[in-house]
Amino acid sequence: MSAPLPQQAESLKASLEEQANKVRQLKSSKAESGLIQAEVKILNSIKDQMAALGLGPPAKTSGSSPSASSSAPIKYTLKTPKGTRDWEPLAMSLRKKIFSTIEQVFTSHGAVTIDTPVFEMKEILAGKYGEDSKLIYDLQDQGGELCSLRYDLTVPFARFVAMNPSEYGSIKRYHIAKVYRRDQPAMSKGRFREFYQCDFDIAGSYDPMIPDAEILCILVEALDALGMEGFTIKLNHRKILDGIFDVCGVPTEKVRTISSAVDKLDKSPWSEVRREMTVEKGLEEEVADRIGEYVKNKGGRELLEKLLADPLLSNHKSATEGLKDMGLLFDYLEVYGISDRMSFDLSLARGLDYYTGIIYEAVTAASAPPGFNKAAAATTDPSASSSSSSEPSSKKKTNKKKGPDGEDEVDESTVGVGSIAAGGRYDNLVGMFSNSKKPDAVPCVGVSIGVERVFAIKMQQLREAEARGERTGVRSKEVEVFVMSVGDGLLKERMGVAKKLWDNGIKAEFLYKNKPKPAAQFNAIEKDGVPLAVMLAPEEWKSGCVRVKEQKGKDTDEGQGKGEEVKLDQLVEYLRSKGAGSRD
Amino acid sequence: MSAPLPQQAESLKASLEEQANKVRQLKSSKAESGLIQAEVKILNSIKDQMAALGLGPPAKTSGSSPSASSSAPIKYTLKTPKGTRDWEPLAMSLRKKIFSTIEQVFTSHGAVTIDTPVFEMKEILAGKYGEDSKLIYDLQDQGGELCSLRYDLTVPFARFVAMNPSEYGSIKRYHIAKVYRRDQPAMSKGRFREFYQCDFDIAGSYDPMIPDAEILCILVEALDALGMEGFTIKLNHRKILDGIFDVCGVPTEKVRTISSAVDKLDKSPWSEVRREMTVEKGLEEEVADRIGEYVKNKGGRELLEKLLADPLLSNHKSATEGLKDMGLLFDYLEVYGISDRMSFDLSLARGLDYYTGIIYEAVTAASAPPGFNKAAAATTDPSASSSSSSEPSSKKKTNKKKGPDGEDEVDESTVGVGSIAAGGRYDNLVGMFSNSKKPDAVPCVGVSIGVERVFAIKMQQLREAEARGERTGVRSKEVEVFVMSVGDGLLKERMGVAKKLWDNGIKAEFLYKNKPKPAAQFNAIEKDGVPLAVMLAPEEWKSGCVRVKEQKGKDTDEGQGKGEEVKLDQLVEYLRSKGAGSRD
Repeated sequence: MSAPLPQQAESLKASLEEQANKVRQLKSSKAESGLIQAEVKILNSIKDQMAALGLGPPAKTSGSSPSASSSAPIKYTLKTPKGTRDWEPLAMSLRKKIFSTIEQVFTSHGAVTIDTPVFEMKEILAGKYGEDSKLIYDLQDQGGELCSLRYDLTVPFARFVAMNPSEYGSIKRYHIAKVYRRDQPAMSKGRFREFYQCDFDIAGSYDPMIPDAEILCILVEALDALGMEGFTIKLNHRKILDGIFDVCGVPTEKVRTISSAVDKLDKSPWSEVRREMTVEKGLEEEVADRIGEYVKNKGGRELLEKLLADPLLSNHKSATEGLKDMGLLFDYLEVYGISDRMSFDLSLARGLDYYTGIIYEAVTAASAPPGFNKAAAATTDPSASSSSSSEPSSKKKTNKKKGPDGEDEVDESTVGVGSIAAGGRYDNLVGMFSNSKKPDAVPCVGVSIGVERVFAIKMQQLREAEARGERTGVRSKEVEVFVMSVGDGLLKERMGVAKKLWDNGIKAEFLYKNKPKPAAQFNAIEKDGVPLAVMLAPEEWKSGCVRVKEQKGKDTDEGQGKGEEVKLDQLVEYLRSKGAGSRD
Repeated sequence: MSAPLPQQAESLKASLEEQANKVRQLKSSKAESGLIQAEVKILNSIKDQMAALGLGPPAKTSGSSPSASSSAPIKYTLKTPKGTRDWEPLAMSLRKKIFSTIEQVFTSHGAVTIDTPVFEMKEILAGKYGEDSKLIYDLQDQGGELCSLRYDLTVPFARFVAMNPSEYGSIKRYHIAKVYRRDQPAMSKGRFREFYQCDFDIAGSYDPMIPDAEILCILVEALDALGMEGFTIKLNHRKILDGIFDVCGVPTEKVRTISSAVDKLDKSPWSEVRREMTVEKGLEEEVADRIGEYVKNKGGRELLEKLLADPLLSNHKSATEGLKDMGLLFDYLEVYGISDRMSFDLSLARGLDYYTGIIYEAVTAASAPPGFNKAAAATTDPSASSSSSSEPSSKKKTNKKKGPDGEDEVDESTVGVGSIAAGGRYDNLVGMFSNSKKPDAVPCVGVSIGVERVFAIKMQQLREAEARGERTGVRSKEVEVFVMSVGDGLLKERMGVAKKLWDNGIKAEFLYKNKPKPAAQFNAIEKDGVPLAVMLAPEEWKSGCVRVKEQKGKDTDEGQGKGEEVKLDQLVEYLRSKGAGSRD
């Protein structure tokens, strides 16, 4: 490393002073020792940086860091925060393709997009997620407002609609953005602390079930467009579920906890869920058994008919409202030709509290949980960085145990990777933000695609296809033309050719060397799979010509050995005829 | 609002309990009263939510909120956090267009993209921004690691390269993402706390100035593609600047502060900067005057020749290194045909500390600061939400005064809106993260486009064009076809037609009503500027036909009154012939 610039030294000094002040302040205010230690660690890291530049002695480290030697340069913990990761170029290409596929479906249905800040006023999120509120990231109080990172895109959307009721009280919007949950991460299994959601929501008062049916239609189209095979959309209605709990005799104060037990039926057998209801949650056995008779049901329209014929439910106000909705919904799903993709599943309860009508969850074969009795045989390496994903983890985790670092560890063998999309109707959320007593609640229905899980599945498929030697169509780099020289450096000449290509919308690059070796240039072409090479040689250049060689044409090595000679002033045209610059 | 669902009540109760515990804990640990008050406010908001649903008495509010009445529903502060804002659909369309324009240029030059988390380990950012470190947002310590929101995209990029030196020690990457600064916001003027940056960086060891010249080429191409008119790129070199300060006699410990004074010459006259150097910062008058002789210079290659002829500089090690770089750079800029877009400006110093070589800043006429003596006549309404932007605000603010709320207010009449892009070479930043003593520093050069400022300028132009009645090509909604009914509701028929269009990649919507009025449907078409209407009427439908009407065709009202009759099985083909579904 070269000698420090004066500015660098000054900057470090300023940082040192500020950090030292902070530590002094924390010590004098008798702050928590953990907090002080963390800030001292940062202070030491600044001292070490200065020491490395010869600007002072290194920090005296305590015995807790045995490998620290006083002459070693600063030891950074080079990592991203727990539960987060970087995305490398190839992954990004695939992610962008997935996002644009979803976006194409969303905009086909007339959706607009909005953006909201990554953090919200803390009170906006308060009281929206029940027990999961503890998973919200707060910003430090640095003087000013208390803010939290958004936990989903739904509550910020509701806040946005409530702020602009006259303009956006009726809106179809999508939003593809990151959300944050201080959940126990399971990187290899698909649970992150920072992850993308792709949301589509319809806000506004319309005739019943028309937007609801379209949301399901959008979900099917999006998952089809993504090539997700063999998915099913589980469907239920909160009002039917409430009716069932009511007619079975669940006391009001136990509805939520019993609902959450029922929601586990996708990964636990009935006997276990029944035990949770009765032994853990104190429900009477007969009540549990009555619930069991209902929630084991799944099917299609015939299940609806069966419930309509049920004397208890058909006389229950909430239940009949829900059943009527479902009837209309099935009508519309048949028009859209997607009713066979649905499973009316009375065990689906969904974790989030704000739903008031239909609820749904898409599951693929690829995301099905392992068998109940399969032990921790599945290898789950949390440090594996290439095949991780995330999903809206509304499900409660079970079987936690204390790990060696004192934090909760999740026994992944019992945790399903969950759905790849989920959503429902939430008619009261916007109204919760309303500051007037007028009934200006804006009914909403929406879906959130757990795109990290989709990504993990597609990435896995991509790796497998690559391993089989197939061309996947996913490249990290989009370069179409590599401009190279043979026989001499011809740097300015290569620059000039590249500039001509850039100006004509052709993606091109060259090696940043005065006199690059041919081998180095061919390696670059090979590594990035660049389809076309433009070769400059001193003699040809003098006569206004270059050679163009297709790298992976169908007729490899068939008259392609030296490439085609092309006049410089016809180069752009020639390259276009070979498919370059087509995006322009 | 309908009656609360049991789950909602349970959820609120759980939130209430958690929040009450938090307040108790804060009180018992004698936390700061401001912090306790803020948490109590959240507690009260949960109580009020419950009261609004009839689940208990409202919070007893203190006298500080005079408008609070015990029977009123909860009063949310419906806003985004200070310095942040929502982006409505039209703005988003324009923003997406700007991003994709920039992305197109970046990928033309062979860049790949990566993504990094929004927050980093706090120590990664520590010591990188000098005095500006105080503007970093920290996450609250909720048990676990100390993290901060990223302040720019450069330091996370350097961290990424340092973590993957063998794979990404040589990379061209772009990154379009949000960064966070607890700066004093000036929303109408272009300073946000959450704002996008568009960065392009080249990491790796190459022959001198080749990547540097390409970065400037990319910047010119991007600003041209964005239609930014009359911009200039100011250019300087840190080593030349260091040489000047050295030969003029600036003591090492004053270099940074004097450099920051020089950097103000774009908005303050020399007399003022001189006063700051001498009176405020204690520099000898002769030293200041010597600096003045140098930094007033700007021009092109002829300035370089003049400096090379300067006996003091031409014998100064650092300065001659810088001058040699500049000579080579000018050669390459001439090959790229962009040297006339540059201004070699010795007063450019740039705020960030990590630069080690050339530095640059693009300024447009539109972003030039107001004249020095123009008082606060310019209207600057911080609440205006439609024409705001942001930029990498590395410049120090001046002329602060205490506002009525006790926070600093910026007297915007003296604050330039700053550059629209800036960057430079930073050869030591990746090395700072290196944990070994080997010289594995990765030299880097990059540029960051202050896209919020670009957006503000383009949005202003868009509004002006709309006011003149011109068609701007920017719509918030991309819908191509509106499916409507006349004479009867024909809901399922409209659904069926829309589904056919969606399945064929045509963007379509219809009104979510069983029996919509024609006027309501025409209003929707008009409002969103949908180009094509498909009309279903009972009689025509029976004979397998619909009518298609172009809404804003060239021959308005010329045989277009009733539209064209089209057979249903030829509808997709017909609509495609009218330009629909072209993105597919």
